[in-house]
Amino acid sequence: MQHTDIIIRNGYIVTINPEMDILENGALAIEKGKILAIGNTEEIEKNYTSENVIDASSKIVMPGLINGHSHIAMTYLRGYADDILLRAWLEDHIWPAEARFVKAQFVYDAAIHGCAELIKNGITMIDDMYFYSKETARAATKAGMRAILGEGILDFPMAFHKTPESMINYALEGHEEFKDNELIDFALMPHSIYTCSKENLIIAAEEARAHDMLIHTHLSETKKEVVDCLKAHGVRPVQYLDSIGFLGNDVSIAHGVWIDDDEQKLLAKKGVGVNICTECNLKLASGFAPIKGYKENGVTISLATDGVASNNNLSILDEMDMTSKVHKAINNDPTFLPAEEVVRMVTIEPAKIFNKEDEVGSLEVGKKADIILLERDKLENMPMYNVYSHLVYTMHSESVQDVIINGKVLMRDRKLVEIDEDELFEKAKYYQKELQKN
Amino acid sequence: MQHTDIIIRNGYIVTINPEMDILENGALAIEKGKILAIGNTEEIEKNYTSENVIDASSKIVMPGLINGHSHIAMTYLRGYADDILLRAWLEDHIWPAEARFVKAQFVYDAAIHGCAELIKNGITMIDDMYFYSKETARAATKAGMRAILGEGILDFPMAFHKTPESMINYALEGHEEFKDNELIDFALMPHSIYTCSKENLIIAAEEARAHDMLIHTHLSETKKEVVDCLKAHGVRPVQYLDSIGFLGNDVSIAHGVWIDDDEQKLLAKKGVGVNICTECNLKLASGFAPIKGYKENGVTISLATDGVASNNNLSILDEMDMTSKVHKAINNDPTFLPAEEVVRMVTIEPAKIFNKEDEVGSLEVGKKADIILLERDKLENMPMYNVYSHLVYTMHSESVQDVIINGKVLMRDRKLVEIDEDELFEKAKYYQKELQKN
Repeated sequence: MQHTDIIIRNGYIVTINPEMDILENGALAIEKGKILAIGNTEEIEKNYTSENVIDASSKIVMPGLINGHSHIAMTYLRGYADDILLRAWLEDHIWPAEARFVKAQFVYDAAIHGCAELIKNGITMIDDMYFYSKETARAATKAGMRAILGEGILDFPMAFHKTPESMINYALEGHEEFKDNELIDFALMPHSIYTCSKENLIIAAEEARAHDMLIHTHLSETKKEVVDCLKAHGVRPVQYLDSIGFLGNDVSIAHGVWIDDDEQKLLAKKGVGVNICTECNLKLASGFAPIKGYKENGVTISLATDGVASNNNLSILDEMDMTSKVHKAINNDPTFLPAEEVVRMVTIEPAKIFNKEDEVGSLEVGKKADIILLERDKLENMPMYNVYSHLVYTMHSESVQDVIINGKVLMRDRKLVEIDEDELFEKAKYYQKELQKN
Repeated sequence: MQHTDIIIRNGYIVTINPEMDILENGALAIEKGKILAIGNTEEIEKNYTSENVIDASSKIVMPGLINGHSHIAMTYLRGYADDILLRAWLEDHIWPAEARFVKAQFVYDAAIHGCAELIKNGITMIDDMYFYSKETARAATKAGMRAILGEGILDFPMAFHKTPESMINYALEGHEEFKDNELIDFALMPHSIYTCSKENLIIAAEEARAHDMLIHTHLSETKKEVVDCLKAHGVRPVQYLDSIGFLGNDVSIAHGVWIDDDEQKLLAKKGVGVNICTECNLKLASGFAPIKGYKENGVTISLATDGVASNNNLSILDEMDMTSKVHKAINNDPTFLPAEEVVRMVTIEPAKIFNKEDEVGSLEVGKKADIILLERDKLENMPMYNVYSHLVYTMHSESVQDVIINGKVLMRDRKLVEIDEDELFEKAKYYQKELQKN
């Protein structure tokens, strides 16, 4: 009888392992942040014991959701400006607000709020680009959130950084400072091809590879970006990035709405993954990502929320529902993007995109214990005939009951363990008042 | 000082009155099922008193949501078959299951479950078509739900009814039996133009008008329906219905996906409203309703969930979010369908469609007290800059805290007052097992 940190018993376990096994009366033993054993509850309890036993009798147990592209320090800008054109949204609202408010303390506070919200939504890992990203790293560490973080790199000066070098150096410092932190990875994140010169894109990629860091950027969110790229460089965005040696399997892109067939093939060949932000792309009328083409060409794809300023929530379950339904209609085919595939797009597929498929994205022995439990016994969740369909079409984030990241219990019965919600409420109200001042 | 049944105080009141007034520290007095007074909390409390005071300090207070097209007795078929073609879904799964299971007790039990779920989702009125609709009427009465109900009228025999006459007579009986019930209206609901002969459509409309009942039908859900109509009748579905005298301002249609410009003008002229089922139409790949055309041509439109078997939830807040975002993208315009308009599409606009705009759909003195309260102080709902945007893009149905229908409190702090949820859980589990048997 081996003693372990946590045992989860009697769960409906959705493993997302290569066989897509489902264990109906399943159990997990967790030790030192990892999954030590998984199997039938009776078997597991024959071999393992724990003082911390979580009964999952009416629960779905599955790998934590991964959010492939976010800006969680924008949480206080939720719904700050809506129903307007992208350019006006950015230039008249978001950028001026950021210029006035985005400072280290703002980022830390907003990021804690964002992490708390992510945990409540069953998200256990994010890939996040923003400013003062070391503050986000501190907030994620405090919250217990797994995060790949990067400082947005731009050609032009920001309040905080005067040069792109300063932005790159800041991320390299973060990489050094948090290298022993099990939850945090720093990446290099040039903002986009339209805000970064060729030189800065190349430097960012080179520095990333010199330090074994991931690379992440926005790409082809709008049609205009493609038109401008063709005008400036004579080729489309993916070809442009390829021509400067930027692409590789350490690279992931956000959005990828306007990517043609040749570009899709090139992304697949180079091992570049795409994090699709359906709700944001629809809300800002940017367009519909070519999911069918990505699938046919073998591009690894995942779903992401983007920032709440353009969404206006951090729910991956919402992204799943909307993506699956919208792309069935767009492709005139109700069998397109079946639910099981969509669940993979927020678990094992993003794990692959970020080269972490040996660590997260499924419930298998030896992987990190990033696990969520969802309640089945709610009126709106009954009955249940197919767990994947249930996760995609029926359940809301509020069905997430318990969240474990890196073997640490962060939410139990929808109560956050590490974070005081009332304190966050007060801060959110304070910042709302500040942001509403002229 | 007048004594009243209920006072709601300190709320953020979204009235949806003609001026779209918002009262920031607002209060309502409710007496005999109706709104007696509305105004500033201090004023209201000067004139009215009650033993039942609901503090709405951190709440949005708004008219209950109206679900313009549902089949709530299908609740036990939630997720019964997904990701397949419409014809296979109906012929291989839904119809056989219905033939085996749909009996009076099944309908009553499933409808109670459905009503409970609707209340939890902030829905205070439905327009519902199914079989054994008097059972649904009994369930709605027990649950306290306001409902327009109709027996699906079809040319062919069903287990329950052998002839269309029997279906029509059943609805007329319901009309008579429930005439003194404040919550229930019976309507005549021929299923569709492809399941009802011209004669039966005409009889249904005539009977409805003879008894001052509303008329509701599915129309132009799929492209095939239009093609078949053109083949059979030489005109498109709306023109066909017009040619037989079916249309009028007592008629509403569900879906309305494939309706062209001339048909839209005709619907507007005849005062026929359209209840759009976005999620269902996307999931079954039926298409995108022509919302822009409806608006330009002055057709009254509302949003609806359809049945959970094809959705798979009963959340109107989800329909709002998805409809607004998808139609911005379809129209390549992020300013299209602004949030305020979408909120009207689930309150006052459906009230107009069902000729009940003097009774429900807004918070005004003299109207029925169908009122919901939504919690603002949740991490995922903070901060809030614009209440309409918040309702459409941010909030889930789980933010609904309190529900009042016809002046009766049906949910307090998410606990149902009239219905035992545990009992419903057991029933759902029982029916799930039955439906899973071969």
